[in-house]
Amino acid sequence: MTQQASLAALQERIAAVNDVLNATSLLTWDSRTMMPAGGAETRGHQIATLTRIARDLLLAPETESALEKAERAVEGLPEGAAERRMVEQTRHAVEHHRSVPGSLIQERAALRTVAQAAWIEARSKSELAIFAPHLARTVELSRAYADCIGWTEHPYDAMVSIYEPGETAASLKALFGRLRAGLLPILDVARSRPQPRSDFLFRDFPEEGQRAFGLSLAERLGYDLQRGRLDTTVHPFEVSFTRNDVRITTRYNRNYLPASIFGTAHETGHGLYEQGVDPAYTRTTLATDLVGLYAVGGTSFGAHESQSRLWENHIVRSRTFWEKHFPELQRYFPQQLSDVSAEEFYRAVTRVEPGLIRVEADELTYDFHIMLRVEIECALMDGSLSVSDLPSAWNATIKRDLNLTVPDDAKGVLQDVHWSTGYIGSFPTYTIGNIMGAQVMETLRQQNPALDASIEAGDYAVLAEELHTRIWQHGRRFMRDELLERETGRRLDPAPYLAYLRGKYVS
Amino acid sequence: MTQQASLAALQERIAAVNDVLNATSLLTWDSRTMMPAGGAETRGHQIATLTRIARDLLLAPETESALEKAERAVEGLPEGAAERRMVEQTRHAVEHHRSVPGSLIQERAALRTVAQAAWIEARSKSELAIFAPHLARTVELSRAYADCIGWTEHPYDAMVSIYEPGETAASLKALFGRLRAGLLPILDVARSRPQPRSDFLFRDFPEEGQRAFGLSLAERLGYDLQRGRLDTTVHPFEVSFTRNDVRITTRYNRNYLPASIFGTAHETGHGLYEQGVDPAYTRTTLATDLVGLYAVGGTSFGAHESQSRLWENHIVRSRTFWEKHFPELQRYFPQQLSDVSAEEFYRAVTRVEPGLIRVEADELTYDFHIMLRVEIECALMDGSLSVSDLPSAWNATIKRDLNLTVPDDAKGVLQDVHWSTGYIGSFPTYTIGNIMGAQVMETLRQQNPALDASIEAGDYAVLAEELHTRIWQHGRRFMRDELLERETGRRLDPAPYLAYLRGKYVS
Repeated sequence: MTQQASLAALQERIAAVNDVLNATSLLTWDSRTMMPAGGAETRGHQIATLTRIARDLLLAPETESALEKAERAVEGLPEGAAERRMVEQTRHAVEHHRSVPGSLIQERAALRTVAQAAWIEARSKSELAIFAPHLARTVELSRAYADCIGWTEHPYDAMVSIYEPGETAASLKALFGRLRAGLLPILDVARSRPQPRSDFLFRDFPEEGQRAFGLSLAERLGYDLQRGRLDTTVHPFEVSFTRNDVRITTRYNRNYLPASIFGTAHETGHGLYEQGVDPAYTRTTLATDLVGLYAVGGTSFGAHESQSRLWENHIVRSRTFWEKHFPELQRYFPQQLSDVSAEEFYRAVTRVEPGLIRVEADELTYDFHIMLRVEIECALMDGSLSVSDLPSAWNATIKRDLNLTVPDDAKGVLQDVHWSTGYIGSFPTYTIGNIMGAQVMETLRQQNPALDASIEAGDYAVLAEELHTRIWQHGRRFMRDELLERETGRRLDPAPYLAYLRGKYVS
Repeated sequence: MTQQASLAALQERIAAVNDVLNATSLLTWDSRTMMPAGGAETRGHQIATLTRIARDLLLAPETESALEKAERAVEGLPEGAAERRMVEQTRHAVEHHRSVPGSLIQERAALRTVAQAAWIEARSKSELAIFAPHLARTVELSRAYADCIGWTEHPYDAMVSIYEPGETAASLKALFGRLRAGLLPILDVARSRPQPRSDFLFRDFPEEGQRAFGLSLAERLGYDLQRGRLDTTVHPFEVSFTRNDVRITTRYNRNYLPASIFGTAHETGHGLYEQGVDPAYTRTTLATDLVGLYAVGGTSFGAHESQSRLWENHIVRSRTFWEKHFPELQRYFPQQLSDVSAEEFYRAVTRVEPGLIRVEADELTYDFHIMLRVEIECALMDGSLSVSDLPSAWNATIKRDLNLTVPDDAKGVLQDVHWSTGYIGSFPTYTIGNIMGAQVMETLRQQNPALDASIEAGDYAVLAEELHTRIWQHGRRFMRDELLERETGRRLDPAPYLAYLRGKYVS
């Protein structure tokens, strides 16, 4: 068999896995946007079956045989060559799944179903006790999962590696230590300042206008609606079915305008990444997360988040943006925004106000919510914290970091869906996204002298082309830190992020 | 292993097949309602992969082993028992797929892709030559497929059996002979009458009003929107993802009101059937077409069509219906329908006017379009007609039956999508649906004295309950003629259909 034929044989196997995972993504997208209520029960079965089939395809003897031939075929290729990476990543995923027994996967899936229902009830009643046994079991199964995959220093390392390969409990502790030290003084200054006016954000903004502005915003940032859609959901998300069908969703709060604007900008950032993946990677390992069994073109959760945060915060949540585009927003809402200036709007959407809820947090306090969760996840995983002690640990940290008192668990430990879905280890990627986004943006501003002028002119094509060339097109070919080293000369570094926040909130 | 355990083991295998086929249906639904243009290419791969996986699951050694155990387990059950039927139908499907080599299936799938593109071009240019070689190859591959499945009298028998088990070229010839003899005199009388006024049907009817009326119509007939949706497409269809998620689509022609009203009524009829299948059959063989690899609860294409035609024509296209509900339609379109009476509306939507296009045909001429296609399909399959002689055969039959001249192939042999998708043998099911719908309706009217009064009162729950009890709940447990014998005392019989048409169009 020639090298090409060996690779093609493996590629055919992986293409089928990718097809199945894209179908799974469609089942999920549909369940969150279109599905009538009645469909819920069987939809769960359908998603579970397709995920199992994807794993079975990956672990089939035919895949192993094709993989071995392909491994021999790419031996001579240079480190980092796309074909070689495809093969290496496939091997890594096969070994990952081979190490986890099917019975554990089934038990986790079964637990997820009951845990989610329990969490919904627990949150609505603010009674941790309803969810606690399921969370304790989730931790046990995560620990078992980590033991299967293997770890040396901390069981959390194994879980984080699924979402953000390369990070560990120790690396995160070091990273977050530097971040915390830098954030605290910025937050102190910001909190000492008087609050800007923000009354107008809570006026009546009919959904049609919000949607029309959101669509024009997404297109202005470069999102291609011929290869995408914008729909409505409770919890906004982005999902791709290959680069030519990348969908985003948002929610419309009639009495709080920023929710849809910044939510749409955020998901557009995710969408641009997926729409920009090299077409040659379609249906290959380089556009499929074979470990997480998820059809995605971005290289890690953190790298993906870097793109959404970059567009949401560095571009759309900027003074420059609203100086340029606020008149357009006013055209959609002439009465509601008639007594507001662009500067007032900018100040309102960047006001700093520590709160209890992560998803409502401003740029300066958001990462404290993440650091809290990562601390707690580590402690749950290594057994130094039990579920029964969770609320006191949570509430004490919120008091220490944000000086707030948690009135009940619904506004504390029960607020996030993540743990009820069996996800432990994904929270760090939000803050990694913030850090990486700023690091990339700083480099682009330094290296491309035309960038700032184009952004000030309301032209985002220069930025999009830079990101496309440096990040998006590579799909999953390079790991996150490889990308950062190639483009910024160093690995993940919180300094540019702190400099950005300082410039925005202190100067 | 106990009998229950054996059946459960098989059931688990079939449930996975059903899950995959439901995902395939969602990929199709989405591609026709929601998908951005860019998604088309990879969507084809996804559908092909999932269909192949469903077949592989069915032919897997584990399925065979479970099937053999289940066969022993149901040996003592009475003929027609649900569990026994599940096992028998699974065996039938396994043998069907085992007889067809994977290479033939791949070749058919590959041909479908190029044939559809060629057909679209051929129809737009009205040039059969562009499509002809693909159609010739479609016939060849269908012939090969028929030979694999096996047939004794006519190769068409094998193809029809996929859509309408029990019918053959010979049985259809006999059935259509009786139908034609009965239809011709009715059509003669109808054509001799003056045309009613119909100008108002072509006025300006904004889509919002059509959609609102369509939704209220579907709900009035009993369609449950908690377990369904109504969306917009080019070619209306119904699709189910188990009985609790059954979706219908329609199209809105702004300048021709009947298209959406009767289209919606038709798809609602299909939807009611699927929503009414016994919940115990969910994810089983009795709600899955394992031969056609299609997740559907109805027992045959013809039986399905009987329900859509029944609601569309016997209920909604009736004088009684518009006497009752025309004022409601007027409320949606007060200006457009201000000068129209219920009787005038009824007469307009039942006017008879022979035309060249099947999908626009009235009740009296529709079946001639079907009989023409079935005649031609038989002749193509047995080699007595070549593709090059197709137009002259087509045009001569249209001249003979409807006394119309076909001006070009776009309005003749190129008008239907079916042959370009590799479907040969499905056309008879439309007419079978007409016949079966009338046969069922006649029996219900005879056996349930309260039925007519309830329909006249605008209450369709009595009819729905009858159909639910007699047909819908059984899913695929009974074959079409079994259902008819149970409920009407005889097999498929065109007499009630002819009586119905005579009553409506001659009396």
